[in-house]
Amino acid sequence: MAKAFLDKQGVPYTAVDVGADAAAAQKMIDLSGQRGVPVITVDDEVIVGFDSQRLNELFGTPSSNELFDVIIVGAGPAGLTAGVYCARKSLKTLIVSENIGGQALESWAIENYMGYRMISGEDLMKKFEEQVRTQDIRLELDRVEKILKDDSVFVITTVSDAVLKGKSLILTQGKQPRKIGVPDEEKYLGRGLSICSTCDGPLYKGKKVAVVGGGNSAVQTAIEMSSIASSVSLIVRSTIKADPVLVNQLEGKKNITVHLQSHITELHGDQFLKSITIAQENSLDQTLDVDGVFIEVGGNPNTEILDGFVELNKYGEIVVDIDGRTSRPGVFAAGDVTSVRSKQIIIAAGEGAKAGLEAYEYVMKLA
Amino acid sequence: MAKAFLDKQGVPYTAVDVGADAAAAQKMIDLSGQRGVPVITVDDEVIVGFDSQRLNELFGTPSSNELFDVIIVGAGPAGLTAGVYCARKSLKTLIVSENIGGQALESWAIENYMGYRMISGEDLMKKFEEQVRTQDIRLELDRVEKILKDDSVFVITTVSDAVLKGKSLILTQGKQPRKIGVPDEEKYLGRGLSICSTCDGPLYKGKKVAVVGGGNSAVQTAIEMSSIASSVSLIVRSTIKADPVLVNQLEGKKNITVHLQSHITELHGDQFLKSITIAQENSLDQTLDVDGVFIEVGGNPNTEILDGFVELNKYGEIVVDIDGRTSRPGVFAAGDVTSVRSKQIIIAAGEGAKAGLEAYEYVMKLA
Repeated sequence: MAKAFLDKQGVPYTAVDVGADAAAAQKMIDLSGQRGVPVITVDDEVIVGFDSQRLNELFGTPSSNELFDVIIVGAGPAGLTAGVYCARKSLKTLIVSENIGGQALESWAIENYMGYRMISGEDLMKKFEEQVRTQDIRLELDRVEKILKDDSVFVITTVSDAVLKGKSLILTQGKQPRKIGVPDEEKYLGRGLSICSTCDGPLYKGKKVAVVGGGNSAVQTAIEMSSIASSVSLIVRSTIKADPVLVNQLEGKKNITVHLQSHITELHGDQFLKSITIAQENSLDQTLDVDGVFIEVGGNPNTEILDGFVELNKYGEIVVDIDGRTSRPGVFAAGDVTSVRSKQIIIAAGEGAKAGLEAYEYVMKLA
Repeated sequence: MAKAFLDKQGVPYTAVDVGADAAAAQKMIDLSGQRGVPVITVDDEVIVGFDSQRLNELFGTPSSNELFDVIIVGAGPAGLTAGVYCARKSLKTLIVSENIGGQALESWAIENYMGYRMISGEDLMKKFEEQVRTQDIRLELDRVEKILKDDSVFVITTVSDAVLKGKSLILTQGKQPRKIGVPDEEKYLGRGLSICSTCDGPLYKGKKVAVVGGGNSAVQTAIEMSSIASSVSLIVRSTIKADPVLVNQLEGKKNITVHLQSHITELHGDQFLKSITIAQENSLDQTLDVDGVFIEVGGNPNTEILDGFVELNKYGEIVVDIDGRTSRPGVFAAGDVTSVRSKQIIIAAGEGAKAGLEAYEYVMKLA
């Protein structure tokens, strides 16, 4: 994401892979006082994470004030697919997103995206992005702050003060990882606590780690970390809800310990996380020495920016009909942010295609 | 389809590619009195097309009477995806279909399946099928005749008298190409009139052909045939409704003539089609010499077998909710056979995934 932003702004940079270079990893930890990637140094300033607001302040150029046929919010599987469908219909298309690939980037190994027996989320999203790049689509790396309708035009404002105008909208901003709700969670985030195992996993080579969650992504992360870390503790609040194929794999891993009916109550350490306390039903509390904890407990839909703009369900997801229409004419939605129950890449892509084709029909009828 | 059937039944055969071998093509035409593929010879009997009923009579073995967790009807993008999702959830899964790949097989060049910038329908469906083959899924090449519910079990009977029983159903039997409604249409089908340009196109090398339709598939067929045939007449009932990207390509082809506001009124020939009469608004009727006519005018959902079993809409499509549920508990549907407006491979695949996951939840709750 950071590299795409800098490329787009024409800012020269040197990239260092701290997963492959242990000395560089240590230097990064010393410099930033934490273990999360990316870390960007600009002159004397150290920016931790992909802070699009700060990067825009440093390097961004404000958007011009043109009117698009369709603005797509988000660039995960749903947004990128919607983009390809809209552009193939010759719609003037803008995608605004903080990153390219969305939550799909976090998947290590995808076996249920049809067309690929096995592919990483990063590689699959690269293929999606390549397809977008073959089309005439404007891509803004920015964070949406507010969406409103002004007369017949939808207006989006961003954290970097861009004003984007569109005849129609497709909302595909996904969901964000949920927190586990323990004291010091913010303090240790990036200092042992990670919400992105794909990004941070390689930094825990040979170390002890824990994974929190009981769904597919938690079990998959535990399996994957078992071949990187020395030991893995899988901490599951109730019971494991992952696919049997994954559970079978899990059972074959000698260095994974599963703690059912358990949850973390305390995080311990100094500058970095060193151990955790877990509470288990009908048992005494236990302390586990771990260097890293990966949180894989699902997410909340990114719908706070909507503020009553379209109807949401009780989970805060955008209510859509079978063709991707929301409660407001001209506004469509697709992917993990919607009321469709199953959150899968192939489903998000299909919903993105629907939303793109419906937006096309809507825009054609305006003319 | 024929080869898959024979492989499955362990019947040895010799395959001849009449697209590559002109002498063999002529021999096939002499033998069968028509130009459509496949042609299968069994002893002295000549079978034209993939006649699953006749092939089952000759080679088929009746199914045993076991109970499946889920039976998927159809093996296009929706059915194959549903199969992968069900099997990964360890459901005992059966797919029953007359072919593998469905209507997707008819696409020459797909540019809007995310993950592939360009792929043929046949190649993409091979990749889907490979993914299905990695799973424990039973595949029956057969035609469904009737579906009913007997106590708590769904029962499917087929044209080859198989009786298939399932705890849940996923309906993905797609749609079939629509006819154009002119006299002698049946007579010339396979004798110059084709509903499968992918199958029959190569037999018209250097000949004059027409394509009927104005949507994406018609325009795409016209573009593709323009590099095989000597000339292509595109006959469009009203106006062209294809994607602008395709229309741009169409306009660049010198040997394609577009007839707008036109339709075929008569087919002429002897054993084979030789010419057609077309009527054009505000013009005199015209006769065009053509050896082949490809019909690309959309299709009707394959829902006659349902006979009130689930709710249909006014187009005869199965009404589904956003998660792929039909009006009857335990019965799910996905793909072109459903009320979802846009008919696209990526959409069908996404809907298949939804239906598979919903069927899993339904079956788990029965236990």
